Amino acid sequence: MAQWLRFQHQGKTGLGQVQGDQVAVHTGDLFNKPQATGETLKLSDVTLDIPCTPSKMVAMVDNFHALVTKLEHAVPAEPLYFLKGNNSFLAANQVIRTPKSYSGKVVYEGELGIVIGKACHEVDEAQAAHAIFGYTCINDVTAIEILNRDPGYAQWTRSKSFNTFGVFGPYITTDVDPSKLTIKTILNDQERQNYPIADMIFAPAKLVSLISQDVPLQAGDIIACGTSVGVGSMKPGSNVSIIIDGVGRLDNRFE
Amino acid sequence: MAQWLRFQHQGKTGLGQVQGDQVAVHTGDLFNKPQATGETLKLSDVTLDIPCTPSKMVAMVDNFHALVTKLEHAVPAEPLYFLKGNNSFLAANQVIRTPKSYSGKVVYEGELGIVIGKACHEVDEAQAAHAIFGYTCINDVTAIEILNRDPGYAQWTRSKSFNTFGVFGPYITTDVDPSKLTIKTILNDQERQNYPIADMIFAPAKLVSLISQDVPLQAGDIIACGTSVGVGSMKPGSNVSIIIDGVGRLDNRFE
Repeated sequence: MAQWLRFQHQGKTGLGQVQGDQVAVHTGDLFNKPQATGETLKLSDVTLDIPCTPSKMVAMVDNFHALVTKLEHAVPAEPLYFLKGNNSFLAANQVIRTPKSYSGKVVYEGELGIVIGKACHEVDEAQAAHAIFGYTCINDVTAIEILNRDPGYAQWTRSKSFNTFGVFGPYITTDVDPSKLTIKTILNDQERQNYPIADMIFAPAKLVSLISQDVPLQAGDIIACGTSVGVGSMKPGSNVSIIIDGVGRLDNRFE
Repeated sequence: MAQWLRFQHQGKTGLGQVQGDQVAVHTGDLFNKPQATGETLKLSDVTLDIPCTPSKMVAMVDNFHALVTKLEHAVPAEPLYFLKGNNSFLAANQVIRTPKSYSGKVVYEGELGIVIGKACHEVDEAQAAHAIFGYTCINDVTAIEILNRDPGYAQWTRSKSFNTFGVFGPYITTDVDPSKLTIKTILNDQERQNYPIADMIFAPAKLVSLISQDVPLQAGDIIACGTSVGVGSMKPGSNVSIIIDGVGRLDNRFE
């Protein structure tokens, strides 16, 4: 298992691997044999950046049995998704902000993120498994009152693409089997979500294979696997954390 | 009025302005005072490329009165849109291809494309008008049988984001008032669409202003203004052209 991050330190950006409370600084491309420089920094001395720069974030809808059951939706026959705008990306510890043009409820959605490590298109499940580099924590923030306010058109991309609404990190964790893990969302010290990844309708390798039939995936692309039950709104001043033990803990404040 | 294109010629890519049957080659950034090199090429000697590289293509739904009336939808109170995947972009004269994983009908949708010339975010209509660089022709190709095949979730992004489905060009035309123009789609020498841009529900400057309340727009971003009546399917071997007199003529073959 390795945990990769990107950071800012003394005005420069860098790539590194977490080693206890240290960062082992690396150079090169995260997805193509980065090299250790030998330099280490204290983790507490760096500012975390998003751990990669996706060319796209493909975000799933209705991908957990518990949520589909609660919403009284049918179990989908194929992955249902939208694109979350790249402008929305936000790193751990940064502030999620209410859009100027919106005064309604803003909700958290704790999710597993799949990080693609090599380009793949129209691949089978075995090839898709090899294309997965690792996993990260996602908070798929949503201006929920926009989503269904038009009577005929659900505004998925719009309600979820405001600046700061695509939160992911703090790390990309490799060599972990997410099917054994749970996702917790903590809002101001209260647990709001706690659901097993094993309840996912389309599991990671299957999901990557199926999405790759539609669109080519690039190294650094992220698939947000969709959330489950327990979604709720955040009041300004709230602290929200998405925790996947063994993957990471994504902390942000909401204003 | 100027018409800008990008091209490939003798293994190199370039930027140019159309002057009759010639291309006046330019260097630099299309959106930041490109300079004429003095070199000219014959337009018939170059291979057209997409005229800019959008960071995103925002694509409108239900944005023409005639279509909304035909579909018996309500006139939307605000712009309804999705993101079309950047992988889908295709230049004039290139081949639109049926996805390997899909055997249903593929439809053309002739549309006006707004090309943003400078970054804007949360701008009013006057500022939005200044942020518009020019216009282009769009064929918003769609795997139409995917769009509504899930009973609960309309698959806009997916049905419209296959490789080669985001066709735009051949040029970006500046200093033109699109409100006086019509959009025609010609399929194998038969006119299939012919509708006035004046029938648009959210006209360009208003559209750019409203979308900019949601997401920052960058130079080179494109807003596909949505189609109107006359959408239909293409048989393999078809030639399809989107014609906006004064803006351009976008020709492609479908296989």
